[in-house]
Amino acid sequence: MQALKTHITLNIKTLANELGLSIGTVSKALRNSHEISEGTKKRVLAKARELNYQVNPFASSLRKQKSKTIAVVIPEVANNFFALAINGIEDVALAKGYHVLIYLTHEDVKKEITISQLLQNGRVDGILMSLSAQTKSKSHLVALREKEIPLVFFDRVADEFDVPKIITDDFDISIKATEHLLKNGCRQIAYLSISNNISIENRRRSGYEEGLRRNNIDIDETLIINCEDEATSREKIKQLLHREKKVDGVFASVEKLAVMTYELCRENNIRIPTDLKIVGFSNLYTAALLNPSLTTVTQPAFEMGKQAATVLFKMIEKRGHHFLQENTVIPSKLIIRGSSIE
Amino acid sequence: MQALKTHITLNIKTLANELGLSIGTVSKALRNSHEISEGTKKRVLAKARELNYQVNPFASSLRKQKSKTIAVVIPEVANNFFALAINGIEDVALAKGYHVLIYLTHEDVKKEITISQLLQNGRVDGILMSLSAQTKSKSHLVALREKEIPLVFFDRVADEFDVPKIITDDFDISIKATEHLLKNGCRQIAYLSISNNISIENRRRSGYEEGLRRNNIDIDETLIINCEDEATSREKIKQLLHREKKVDGVFASVEKLAVMTYELCRENNIRIPTDLKIVGFSNLYTAALLNPSLTTVTQPAFEMGKQAATVLFKMIEKRGHHFLQENTVIPSKLIIRGSSIE
Repeated sequence: MQALKTHITLNIKTLANELGLSIGTVSKALRNSHEISEGTKKRVLAKARELNYQVNPFASSLRKQKSKTIAVVIPEVANNFFALAINGIEDVALAKGYHVLIYLTHEDVKKEITISQLLQNGRVDGILMSLSAQTKSKSHLVALREKEIPLVFFDRVADEFDVPKIITDDFDISIKATEHLLKNGCRQIAYLSISNNISIENRRRSGYEEGLRRNNIDIDETLIINCEDEATSREKIKQLLHREKKVDGVFASVEKLAVMTYELCRENNIRIPTDLKIVGFSNLYTAALLNPSLTTVTQPAFEMGKQAATVLFKMIEKRGHHFLQENTVIPSKLIIRGSSIE
Repeated sequence: MQALKTHITLNIKTLANELGLSIGTVSKALRNSHEISEGTKKRVLAKARELNYQVNPFASSLRKQKSKTIAVVIPEVANNFFALAINGIEDVALAKGYHVLIYLTHEDVKKEITISQLLQNGRVDGILMSLSAQTKSKSHLVALREKEIPLVFFDRVADEFDVPKIITDDFDISIKATEHLLKNGCRQIAYLSISNNISIENRRRSGYEEGLRRNNIDIDETLIINCEDEATSREKIKQLLHREKKVDGVFASVEKLAVMTYELCRENNIRIPTDLKIVGFSNLYTAALLNPSLTTVTQPAFEMGKQAATVLFKMIEKRGHHFLQENTVIPSKLIIRGSSIE
């Protein structure tokens, strides 16, 4: 009993108290965060070593009654990317004898906050999360980290937040997709954007802009269409397709905007690829069967889910691992089909 | 405190003891199950009334500490039907201030049993379930019912099991789909089946057979292809498409088999609809954009999810409601597109 009591005493709070620092600062220092000065990091690590913090997984010993459950918090499920990512996650969890609970935020940050609060009470051993399009403040995530609940981001991440992240090469692949459209004769390429808020979107749009820049094409802000609001996006794309200075290429940042463009082309007798070439981020399993077949940026959804779960289980099994920064970038593929070449 | 104690004493176990019957029998009698004789039902109801059982929701008073959470147990999520059904469920749950946990069985009855055991301990207030293709024995569900955890089936149901069920008109719509293929000139119509085990599959195949029968076409068992095993189904369909007595129509009982048939037709230069006409059960949102567009039996997935959740919340809020049998049939639609007409 004495040993157990010692463990309970030596949690991160005690460590922080001993150092006269906040739990957040100590947590960041232990994770080797760039936000913390080298001096402070050294001081924290020295004290942690002195108190034997890094060897004993204290929080874990407090939480021995494992739930054998992990949570997956994602924006939606009617989306092939997330459906495939879940399969990758379940693949790993199943082998570990774990259950997977799926929580949907429906892109609503209020729901994401409520779910994060629910998950603070130890009902799961770890969390995989892909942020909602609305998420700006990260205070609900800070609370999870301070409770030392293993957390891994995948796909939609908060760049500045120190937990492992599994992402794809959104920036590079977007340059490649844009240059592919340019090589096939497009000069007026529109970019259909889903949100100004999420990490992947910023990287995709930056890649599109970089692709134009490298080919000495000016960026025309009127060709970047914000389709965050579902109610108005169809009308916005329709207007885009009918504008005087003809659009000859569309790069859709998400699958549903590529599909919407197909529908509008059909309704308005715009021929793909003759009048308009289209590339879309998509994990649609019917992409090759569309009329015409759709050129896609295909994300490694299954692999990303699998890798995210693998890193999470490392954190769950060896709590010391949460000192590590494991950022993994798994490349996407540009699969060229009928919608972008003649 | 005395009142509460009385409530605790008067649970279904006490009622069963008083009657000298098993809990299962009493539970079935209270639900007006056809398995229980009229005499026993009367006796149980009389005793329940005597002890005031039907007025006081005893189990509910024992379970006042609500989790504000419901579980959705489904075979898979990379399937448009379930993705849309979840959206319908969340629509209702959100309005009630409830969280939705999604559990996947991956068509594995062992996983379904483990999940059912997990859910017996009161971690959720109610369960929506669509059975795995492997589920034969229902003993894991009996345990849930005996613990009086509200349970509603949707889509894939156990016909003989007395809980509310939300289904679609699989039999009638399958007759309609088969007759549509016949009207458009098909005489050798194959049926691609996903499992011999699940309720919906039996109704769909019976509808196909009834459609043929009504038009005086003999049922040819060699045209009914069991595609339960993913590894062999592509080869089986390929052989079907190449058999000597030419197949001129395909009725796919699930979306992925329709898509597989499209892929095989493309690889083998079989023209749709000229050489082969196809109808598939599908909630694919790109069905209209395929080459050619796919004729679908479209299930009311969103509405089924919504209705299932509505019935479940009735049961959660008024426990007396579990006496009711609420079976709802929401009709599917045959949407005729390019794959079945010339």
